[in-house]
Amino acid sequence: MITLLTDFGLQDGYVGVIKGVIKTINPDLDLIDLTHNIPPQNLLAASFVLQNAIDYFPPDTIHLIVVDPGVGSERRAIVMKCQQGYFVCPDNGILTGVLNKYQPQQIYSLTNENYWLKHNVSSTFHGRDIFAPVAAHLAYGIPLKDLGEQIEQSSLIKLNLLKVEITKDTIIGAIQYIDIYGNLVTNISREMLEGQSWSVMVNNIKINSHFTYSTVEQSKLLVLIGSHGYLEIAVNGGNAKIVLDKNYGDLIKVTLNQL
Amino acid sequence: MITLLTDFGLQDGYVGVIKGVIKTINPDLDLIDLTHNIPPQNLLAASFVLQNAIDYFPPDTIHLIVVDPGVGSERRAIVMKCQQGYFVCPDNGILTGVLNKYQPQQIYSLTNENYWLKHNVSSTFHGRDIFAPVAAHLAYGIPLKDLGEQIEQSSLIKLNLLKVEITKDTIIGAIQYIDIYGNLVTNISREMLEGQSWSVMVNNIKINSHFTYSTVEQSKLLVLIGSHGYLEIAVNGGNAKIVLDKNYGDLIKVTLNQL
Amino acid sequence: MITLLTDFGLQDGYVGVIKGVIKTINPDLDLIDLTHNIPPQNLLAASFVLQNAIDYFPPDTIHLIVVDPGVGSERRAIVMKCQQGYFVCPDNGILTGVLNKYQPQQIYSLTNENYWLKHNVSSTFHGRDIFAPVAAHLAYGIPLKDLGEQIEQSSLIKLNLLKVEITKDTIIGAIQYIDIYGNLVTNISREMLEGQSWSVMVNNIKINSHFTYSTVEQSKLLVLIGSHGYLEIAVNGGNAKIVLDKNYGDLIKVTLNQL
Repeated sequence: MITLLTDFGLQDGYVGVIKGVIKTINPDLDLIDLTHNIPPQNLLAASFVLQNAIDYFPPDTIHLIVVDPGVGSERRAIVMKCQQGYFVCPDNGILTGVLNKYQPQQIYSLTNENYWLKHNVSSTFHGRDIFAPVAAHLAYGIPLKDLGEQIEQSSLIKLNLLKVEITKDTIIGAIQYIDIYGNLVTNISREMLEGQSWSVMVNNIKINSHFTYSTVEQSKLLVLIGSHGYLEIAVNGGNAKIVLDKNYGDLIKVTLNQL
Repeated sequence: MITLLTDFGLQDGYVGVIKGVIKTINPDLDLIDLTHNIPPQNLLAASFVLQNAIDYFPPDTIHLIVVDPGVGSERRAIVMKCQQGYFVCPDNGILTGVLNKYQPQQIYSLTNENYWLKHNVSSTFHGRDIFAPVAAHLAYGIPLKDLGEQIEQSSLIKLNLLKVEITKDTIIGAIQYIDIYGNLVTNISREMLEGQSWSVMVNNIKINSHFTYSTVEQSKLLVLIGSHGYLEIAVNGGNAKIVLDKNYGDLIKVTLNQL
Repeated sequence: MITLLTDFGLQDGYVGVIKGVIKTINPDLDLIDLTHNIPPQNLLAASFVLQNAIDYFPPDTIHLIVVDPGVGSERRAIVMKCQQGYFVCPDNGILTGVLNKYQPQQIYSLTNENYWLKHNVSSTFHGRDIFAPVAAHLAYGIPLKDLGEQIEQSSLIKLNLLKVEITKDTIIGAIQYIDIYGNLVTNISREMLEGQSWSVMVNNIKINSHFTYSTVEQSKLLVLIGSHGYLEIAVNGGNAKIVLDKNYGDLIKVTLNQL
């Protein structure tokens, strides 16, 4: 099984072409779309969606990830194996979320042109010309070392994830993802809040914590631990991003109340 | 085969995760997307799309439907079997259209946690944690009675569908669906109009009936019996919703002309 | 394997219904979406996406294409076979791009109702009622001549593609496709430019040619030979369509510099 995660959108046939390349090499593969609507070149969003998805797939799944602002430059193309699967992608930080959860077992660059698409390699569409054919060959069980040269983990690009600041009375984190409903997902995790009573102050509005969306009235703000396991600001039946005018990276402050 | 119908959109990887859960349990299943772009929490739209799709699938298809504004509240999770397939979904009226066409043969609540996702159940993503794993297990042929307790049909939630009013000279119905082209689909069916000559008056514009879109000029309004079997207001090459400024539930009046 | 290319969008369940029809007839088929987000009724865009995709699929692939502004009129439904696959679609010019690359081997009209959907044929949804069931039957190996009457290639509808004008110092082409990033793809091909130094003038802005997006600064304009093999105007990290206010068919002038 191969999953696909890109910022190609669904209009242009780019995703279809990638699937054609894979199926031509390896017709029996199951292809599952994670998403193709990552905001263009948003590596933070891609890293977040990926880290949240992989635990729900079999551990021998191949994850093909193409959010690739540096295509055609010197950035490396890589394959990484960890206990939760194989990852075929550019080396641009997109694996940051995965590497925070899992230790890599093998990392190789994709320099062996024998596993690339035969006829030509464009300078702008390595998804089709390099990543897709490599993933399709990998599914036949080709050893990673045949695909290129070994890479040290320390040389991989990592994204600067926002740090959470915890004091006795407050936790300050930031928005690391905004989903299609406009829910603002912070990087403040369930574990940081467990066993405490808390609320959030945004734009001078105090927002109370709830267990689920439907326990507040329509159009009311709430904070909750979302399905990803992080503190999330939402509007029941509405869009918190628009209501609060917030974006990626904006700081969010939690007030802890002594029980 | 499992079909998927949600309002999750295609940006966030939620749909991909649901497919991962299903494929981890039951790798050989065929997964078909009905749509994931139901307008958020619009149960009427979901019910309409579902009732129109099911006749085109094999009768042993499992339909997994997650439009779930009440997730985390007391609303029940259910499975329903009728002659046109199995339906795994929240009990919130989403089956109204199906139940208007088919008699349920079995209905059970999904309370047996053995068929839920093992590690934990979130309060906001039952699609991943309850509905998807139940559907995947169901495809192995597990009897419905193993999944929970039997439910009486009379206890199911139903949506208040708009009633059609028929007199000698007029039929008054309402818009029950608006498709992506902006076509306004009413709840006035082919059968109510058969053998009669008729036209529609909207915003003081008289719109004549036609057999197909291309028999009027570009940008002209028309009414026709659409592919769903209902009276539909359209603009050839344009968007009737925008041109007429209409929305879900707005009334539409048909004038019948004696032949 | 069947690919699907439509302008149905992904909201309404139309695509799901088409897949249900195919799977009901032929459950073992692999279905690959090329795209369902062709701009409504944009035959030029559909023809372009199709011509660029087919070389990446196995040569026995069946391509099901439904962008069909003339549905319900006298336009013919056809199947065409060439060395790069089978094409099931309306005869409205949608194969123009394919026919510029490949010679047709067989062309038939789809008039044999035995291969249509049994119960009824709508006047507005031939994708479901004619094209999908024909494609599903075709995948069983039914000879094309069983599907209807033979058609002469000369009788096929062709789109008026924009002509490229080449002089000693300039090449004037036009925008034939705009992708989801807002990149403006012209009909000026790599072959017309090879071995020359060149730049483009748009809205009195001189834009220089580059090898890939990332060699210019963020938000800067560039021209390059894109992954389709045509001259393409882009903005690194931005949207050239919006920045330059250009649309389908607008002329683009290339200045050739003597080396």
